[in-house]
Amino acid sequence: MSKSGSRVADAPGCPPGALLPEPLSATAATEMAVKLKALADPVRLQLLSAIASRAGGEACVCDIAVGVEVSQPTVSHHLKVLRDAGLLTSQRRASWVYYAVVPDALASLAVLLGVADPVGARG
Amino acid sequence: MSKSGSRVADAPGCPPGALLPEPLSATAATEMAVKLKALADPVRLQLLSAIASRAGGEACVCDIAVGVEVSQPTVSHHLKVLRDAGLLTSQRRASWVYYAVVPDALASLAVLLGVADPVGARG
Repeated sequence: MSKSGSRVADAPGCPPGALLPEPLSATAATEMAVKLKALADPVRLQLLSAIASRAGGEACVCDIAVGVEVSQPTVSHHLKVLRDAGLLTSQRRASWVYYAVVPDALASLAVLLGVADPVGARG
Repeated sequence: MSKSGSRVADAPGCPPGALLPEPLSATAATEMAVKLKALADPVRLQLLSAIASRAGGEACVCDIAVGVEVSQPTVSHHLKVLRDAGLLTSQRRASWVYYAVVPDALASLAVLLGVADPVGARG
C-alpha cells in the first residue's frame, strides 16, 4: 500500500502509510534546520558518532579525534559548532574537557525521520 | 549511569549507555552529510514533512506547498534538492508530479541518531 509499509507499522494518528502525523510548523522547521546544519558535515558526524559510541554517550576530548584526519584546533572548532547547536554538552574535569551527546536533541530529529514516537522518544 | 539512560535501553553491541555501537567511517559520514545538508533547510523540512504526513508517504506537487510561504519555482527547486540527495522520488501521473519519501534514506539517518535498530529499520 505504501512505500513505507516495509519499514514501520502505521503510526497512531497518521494517515495509512504516512511517516508523520502532520507537517512541521515553520518554527519547528527552523529549529530543526539549525541542528541539521550543524550535523551536516562529515567531520562533525564522525566526531559526534565517536562520542555517541562511547560508554555513557560521552568522551574525553583527548579520545574523540582518534581516527579522524584533522588537526586538534579543527576538532575543537567542530565540537564547538555541535555544542552551540545543542547537540553536545561539555564539562571540564581536571585537565580535560569531556563531551556528551544530548539524547533529546537527537531524538527530536529522529521524530522528523518518522522512526521514533514523539512521546516515547522523550520518555 | 548515563545521559541517554532515560531514553533508550542499551542497544545490543553497544557499551553501557552508548547510543551507537561504533563511530561512523569517513565514507559513511560523507554519504550522510550529503543527505543532512539537503535536509538542513527550513523550507525543505516543511516540504518533506508535508509529504511524509500524507497517506502512503507521497503527495502531489499541487498539494505539497500548501501553507509554505514560498513561490512555486522555489518549491520546485527545493524538491529537486531533496530528490537529488536521495530523500524523495518523483513520478509523473497525467498532469501532475507526485513525490514520495524514501523511507530507507530517512532510516539510515535515524540510525545515526541512535533511535533505530540498523537491521530493524530496514526490515
